[in-house]
Amino acid sequence: MTQFMQYPAAQRLKQLASQPFDLTKSNNLTPERLADFSAEACGYKLLYGTERVTKEVMQTLFSLSKEAHVFQKMEAMQSGATINAIEGFPSENRSVLHTATRDFFDDQNQAPAAREAAKQSLLQVEKLRTFMAKIDREQKFTDVVMIGIGGSDLGPRAHYLSLQHLLKPGRRAHFIANIDPDDSSAVFRDLDLSKTLVLVVSKTGTTMETATNEAFMRKKLLEAKLKPEEHIVSITMPGSPLDDPKKYLACFHMWDWVGGRYSTTSMVGGVLLAFAFGVEVFWEFLRGASAMDKISLKNKPETNLPLLAALLGIWNRNFLEHPMLAIIPYSQALLRYPAHIQQLDMESDGKRIDKSGQAVAFETGPIIWGEVGTSSQHSFFQLLHQGTTVVPLEFIGFKESQFGQDHLIDGTTSQQKLLSNLFAQILALATGQQSDNPNKIFPGNRPSHLLLGKQLTPFALGALLAFYEHKVAFQGFIWNINSFDQEGVQLGKVLATKIIGRFASPSSPAYPLADALLKKLETFNE
Amino acid sequence: MTQFMQYPAAQRLKQLASQPFDLTKSNNLTPERLADFSAEACGYKLLYGTERVTKEVMQTLFSLSKEAHVFQKMEAMQSGATINAIEGFPSENRSVLHTATRDFFDDQNQAPAAREAAKQSLLQVEKLRTFMAKIDREQKFTDVVMIGIGGSDLGPRAHYLSLQHLLKPGRRAHFIANIDPDDSSAVFRDLDLSKTLVLVVSKTGTTMETATNEAFMRKKLLEAKLKPEEHIVSITMPGSPLDDPKKYLACFHMWDWVGGRYSTTSMVGGVLLAFAFGVEVFWEFLRGASAMDKISLKNKPETNLPLLAALLGIWNRNFLEHPMLAIIPYSQALLRYPAHIQQLDMESDGKRIDKSGQAVAFETGPIIWGEVGTSSQHSFFQLLHQGTTVVPLEFIGFKESQFGQDHLIDGTTSQQKLLSNLFAQILALATGQQSDNPNKIFPGNRPSHLLLGKQLTPFALGALLAFYEHKVAFQGFIWNINSFDQEGVQLGKVLATKIIGRFASPSSPAYPLADALLKKLETFNE
Repeated sequence: MTQFMQYPAAQRLKQLASQPFDLTKSNNLTPERLADFSAEACGYKLLYGTERVTKEVMQTLFSLSKEAHVFQKMEAMQSGATINAIEGFPSENRSVLHTATRDFFDDQNQAPAAREAAKQSLLQVEKLRTFMAKIDREQKFTDVVMIGIGGSDLGPRAHYLSLQHLLKPGRRAHFIANIDPDDSSAVFRDLDLSKTLVLVVSKTGTTMETATNEAFMRKKLLEAKLKPEEHIVSITMPGSPLDDPKKYLACFHMWDWVGGRYSTTSMVGGVLLAFAFGVEVFWEFLRGASAMDKISLKNKPETNLPLLAALLGIWNRNFLEHPMLAIIPYSQALLRYPAHIQQLDMESDGKRIDKSGQAVAFETGPIIWGEVGTSSQHSFFQLLHQGTTVVPLEFIGFKESQFGQDHLIDGTTSQQKLLSNLFAQILALATGQQSDNPNKIFPGNRPSHLLLGKQLTPFALGALLAFYEHKVAFQGFIWNINSFDQEGVQLGKVLATKIIGRFASPSSPAYPLADALLKKLETFNE
Repeated sequence: MTQFMQYPAAQRLKQLASQPFDLTKSNNLTPERLADFSAEACGYKLLYGTERVTKEVMQTLFSLSKEAHVFQKMEAMQSGATINAIEGFPSENRSVLHTATRDFFDDQNQAPAAREAAKQSLLQVEKLRTFMAKIDREQKFTDVVMIGIGGSDLGPRAHYLSLQHLLKPGRRAHFIANIDPDDSSAVFRDLDLSKTLVLVVSKTGTTMETATNEAFMRKKLLEAKLKPEEHIVSITMPGSPLDDPKKYLACFHMWDWVGGRYSTTSMVGGVLLAFAFGVEVFWEFLRGASAMDKISLKNKPETNLPLLAALLGIWNRNFLEHPMLAIIPYSQALLRYPAHIQQLDMESDGKRIDKSGQAVAFETGPIIWGEVGTSSQHSFFQLLHQGTTVVPLEFIGFKESQFGQDHLIDGTTSQQKLLSNLFAQILALATGQQSDNPNKIFPGNRPSHLLLGKQLTPFALGALLAFYEHKVAFQGFIWNINSFDQEGVQLGKVLATKIIGRFASPSSPAYPLADALLKKLETFNE
């Protein structure tokens, strides 16, 4: 199997990277370039004139994508091929069909596996519609508590926070993810359980945190003289211990062909978002995601935004050798969106073997982190401008606010001030500044691109989610890694179980290294 | 001026780093090592047996700290010397006395500048005590809204979230930081302004975001037929436009010798934390911070935790060449603590010139990011275990929960499961795992250390804050940079003002690069 760096295009990119485009040189970064290095789809423009790329770099990156057969791989993924696999070794051997959870609109995938998956997904949406009609009619619940962790927490939580302007009056969501008992204690403190709907999300029903927190929730409901089966909804695989209508108010289904970090458009996100905003909002969100799914299949550089972002990422990661990417939304609604993308990207592409089981000889997934602007300008932007490590940036911005409640001060609105700051940072990072005072020198050449939309609507949010999902998938396709398993979380689980055994009983198998740490706890009693 | 890498100890460390301690080798990581590589102060243990250091590395790092005169510099800082300066160039030329804002307990600094600063700080605490007694007596306010950004937001917010178990019944805090109008809209939606106390925090009164959001708040109060001067408290420098008792319910003071990111122990954090938890809780918090301040002055490797953490950071950053540090608290209460430390560290040490104005020839402040465990185990830990980039980690954990509401399931409490997971991750990252299945190979040698406390009390939280403040300062002292200015945020401000001008009036000075971006906005109207 060809390793990524052996592709002819990769060899050429290596040469081109020895002298990357200089954004600080006069007449290099021009208004024409900013206008020209631009692509557009699903209501978003991707503006990348402030990346350190030339036309030749971009063409070679597109050649790389063809040499890596990314379109065939994306087509195979959306058609239900068994791409979650490592050849020659035991692996999950599953198809990867999160796109089917929203393939209800134009150009539906006709492959039988994809058709069947979309059919099952649509049945769940219809079940959700009926369930929510009843919830809305009975008006019993004001609050919802989501019990889940990882993909069953970060995606739903980030998306819930992203559409607060559409929150149904009187409704609120809360989240319990951590095994830390203080997480649930803080939630329980503010809750009237008699008006609380609980969503328990676990594919297999065996996740320690979720099982523990569900058990605690059941205890609390019983203590409040409430019946758990009238309050708790499960979202799980058919046949799991949670798939039991006697124990739950309702059971919604997910499947092994939807990874946790790709599950927000399944019922994992669906039940929460429909309770908070209504099923129609969730439906629009699905429509946006599906629109971007279709875009990702097309070999059209001028519209395929996820591929374009993936290629810019590969350029910065493998050729300019930057180990990180910061995601900076200039949108308060996207406050926790970087935390979701952090999981999506790092758990998918943080891998060290390729699909044939061979250790890779190049860098894979970057470290992803970020916070919203303008707040982050007053936090870590000092280092971004004048630190010794260059961090490539992915900015997100919108022309219009969500609430539409703006205030004109000194002739401009806050939204205009927000956009002014966004544009100013992009330009300042790129061009830098010379000065006689060494403390006022900005080296510049700090690359970034901007995903710019009109407004963060449910449709735009869905398109944004699928943009990131496919960006991550394209990078994995180019590196030829399996972006859809997570073997790296297993060792910690095994060791944790051994240490829990030591807490439970001194007669459990000895674990000298852990015991040395446990002994440190005892000294606090002295 | 000696550059860092020319210190004899740095030269020796460079040699030692060519063969760092191998945590995966059998009999290298032993229970004895875990017990032995340990230091202790203010109720915390710093366990660093899982760093890639030997006794010789540690001794050489301590030699480095002496060659860099870190104790003299720390003493000078806490005594009020003008250390916020670049020699030979215009700079802020200020003393750095955040330690004086809590120097009310043992071993008070006797330098006149420090004495005077502590005296002024104590007057503010006494004013706060009187003010809060009135607030508590009148019971007019249930909610507080904090308007501030950067250091006037991240620290207070993180600390407010850290002590939720002590929240006074019926009280809640909200935060408006961003210029994004959706930030304030979401806060206003849930607020009864008649019961709302507002804190406006701005040193000079000129921060665009804070001035704009205050103006909007005044408008909202007037619309609700309320008097702004009966609801809004200012926290500002004496003589600033906000220091006006006619316009505010009260004016609390801060000074130019407290940097924004170091201001949580001043009234910037004080008014909020006292409203939420009571003045006594704030006082205990100050006592914890002050205790760690005293520890940082002592040339005692076995207790000086901030210095120890700084030296481990220098080892990982400059000698093992890791550009990042992830901060992972196994404590839900510390949910937003990494965001505060991110600012504190990156804004302080993200510098490219030394104190004589010379460009550095080595790496300075690392990129800081992080999320709480166990949640993050189900997010980005895949990459930490099996990605191609090694990320050093700083774990924080506590023996006991805060709320004390735990649930025993299968023989162990959730707190025990939390600690088991914490210890398991530390060991798994260090030792790794061999396997015939390449997907189950964990390379190991991923360094980390653990700050372990008994319980996250107000005292422990204060000590934790000062631990980080002094860790950051020690790293800056060793690199000989100015950790207390932030010139890197200026260029963006200047450019943003120019672009705001373009929004306000087409006749404002042309800015072709920005205009190219502004034109992209117009196409959304088509």
